[in-house]
Amino acid sequence: MAMKQRQDMSKLIDVHSHVSPLNFPAAPNTAVATRWPCMQCQSSVEGTLMIGETPFRKLDARSWDVSRRIEDMDRNGIDIQVLSPMPELLSYWLDLTDAQVICDAVNHQIASLVASAPARFRGLGSVPMQSPEAAARMLPRLKQEFGLKGVEIGSNINGKLLGEGDFDPFWAAAEAEGMAIFVHALHPVAAKTLGSNQTFTGFALFPVDTGMTASSIIMNGVLDRFPRLRIGFSHGGGTLGASIGRLQLGWKMFKAAEGNSLAPAEQARRFFYDSNVYDSDYLAYLATTLAPGQVFAGTDYPYQIMQDDPARWIRDMALPAGIERSICSGAAGRFLAEAF
Amino acid sequence: MAMKQRQDMSKLIDVHSHVSPLNFPAAPNTAVATRWPCMQCQSSVEGTLMIGETPFRKLDARSWDVSRRIEDMDRNGIDIQVLSPMPELLSYWLDLTDAQVICDAVNHQIASLVASAPARFRGLGSVPMQSPEAAARMLPRLKQEFGLKGVEIGSNINGKLLGEGDFDPFWAAAEAEGMAIFVHALHPVAAKTLGSNQTFTGFALFPVDTGMTASSIIMNGVLDRFPRLRIGFSHGGGTLGASIGRLQLGWKMFKAAEGNSLAPAEQARRFFYDSNVYDSDYLAYLATTLAPGQVFAGTDYPYQIMQDDPARWIRDMALPAGIERSICSGAAGRFLAEAF
Repeated sequence: MAMKQRQDMSKLIDVHSHVSPLNFPAAPNTAVATRWPCMQCQSSVEGTLMIGETPFRKLDARSWDVSRRIEDMDRNGIDIQVLSPMPELLSYWLDLTDAQVICDAVNHQIASLVASAPARFRGLGSVPMQSPEAAARMLPRLKQEFGLKGVEIGSNINGKLLGEGDFDPFWAAAEAEGMAIFVHALHPVAAKTLGSNQTFTGFALFPVDTGMTASSIIMNGVLDRFPRLRIGFSHGGGTLGASIGRLQLGWKMFKAAEGNSLAPAEQARRFFYDSNVYDSDYLAYLATTLAPGQVFAGTDYPYQIMQDDPARWIRDMALPAGIERSICSGAAGRFLAEAF
Repeated sequence: MAMKQRQDMSKLIDVHSHVSPLNFPAAPNTAVATRWPCMQCQSSVEGTLMIGETPFRKLDARSWDVSRRIEDMDRNGIDIQVLSPMPELLSYWLDLTDAQVICDAVNHQIASLVASAPARFRGLGSVPMQSPEAAARMLPRLKQEFGLKGVEIGSNINGKLLGEGDFDPFWAAAEAEGMAIFVHALHPVAAKTLGSNQTFTGFALFPVDTGMTASSIIMNGVLDRFPRLRIGFSHGGGTLGASIGRLQLGWKMFKAAEGNSLAPAEQARRFFYDSNVYDSDYLAYLATTLAPGQVFAGTDYPYQIMQDDPARWIRDMALPAGIERSICSGAAGRFLAEAF
């Protein structure tokens, strides 16, 4: 199918799209078997991802088949997809050595998809953030051996928000390697306390967790310590944009005590955000006011909640031309350190 | 001091202002003494609110002295303050009978402040939400005996968000009595899991908790069951405005399963919000786009983080005249069921 024509639009880069392997390595030991991912396939084009014995999500060829993805991309006018792991595969809840087996499988899959169509894909890999030191050691390999542009990480690591000092070795390595960091909502902190159901967790708490971790990064001065980091938040930064005034107030009152030289509003303008907020009014606030030029397109392809027809959605917002271009490709280029 | 002149502005009603008694009743039993509020006064105009033996907050005459408040209101161009309890006094964590002693003290204080200057004050009281049935029984008394316009309630009740079915007896009574409900952030759910510090809790998690409880009310169909409720959220609804697109998507996918006939965006347009977000861009998004006409002024007087010079702040935003009027007095009038 021919690429759909777009008017007045630069290339369209979808920075938020996920993949998952069709085949997983066997569980390395029986202790981890109940928490190990495995595809139960109905056919070569669809199956159910199991976590141990529990069905987690129905998947189809879009999660692993290059030609099927490219067909969809052409239909939707997407020039390049940035591939990242299905977040549940990040495996922070496993022992380090077990988790590294899954990291390797995921990183190999992403590298292989990118290699099969290098004009159409870029990759963000997985590192075992349950050991920030091991994650830091893995980063150079992801870049040099796997050719990945960065990593996807969870909005919290086993309940710890990303501003905690534990993660400094990881930030240091990401900054040194120039790797992009894509922060994706995962196992929201508040869900544990609330015992909340899956629908409430997915729709109400995912954005909250992303917003909380962005606030944690801001209030703990991560960009003060690592000013060259390129951090992008899924789901438009979650709820961050609604809290920025209050964070700004807190910073004015307490910055001296916290050794945090950058105002929260200034930090918010340095982060990147995907467009995956399903509301053009809020997206306009993000893209023109909170962080002009810092929003890139992201759809959550190939999942049920993905943004349909993103090219049309973005065009219909009738944003200033410069802002529209930054959403389509400019912000993605700066996030991935590549000229599109 | 003469009331400051305002141009092109209707009356200014501050719906978010707090009070606290100078004298508390004695703890009714020794078991509750470590969690009982008490003022330790340095003088008649200042002191420290203690919870048991622990200092909670320094307070001054602004929390209990009518003439001091009116002096500040005149200086700030505020015609009417709506008085609500210092949230820590809501006492949901005490046994019902103990909590009712504090509720009574707080409600008496608010009623007495309002009675001393009825042209300048309105009151929102306290009810023991740890027993929604007891809270429901108390509501008619608050209106008839105490002359209060509604109640302030916490964003969660001992860890339960307000959309949970437990609270239906309370909503039913509030709707029947026509009492306004002001939802204020309190003991954020996520703070417990995170073990987070006071600064992070106050600045990052307060808006999150308010946003989560608003999402819970939306996703659990409270307005479907009680369509005439008038619910106002502190801190501009917290993070709700950043999540509305995702809630809307979830509703489109799952509304049939959840018996929820009102779209989240429609529900968001029926709620009220205070202006206490410390960011004029985000407030403009709230007041003109998320919920036009539904934002009322609120300052958090007399606390350290209060919005200074609200009249000037609102005027400087240069909003459309109708929206500005609704922030100053129109939305407050509809929230309190009174023509200002």
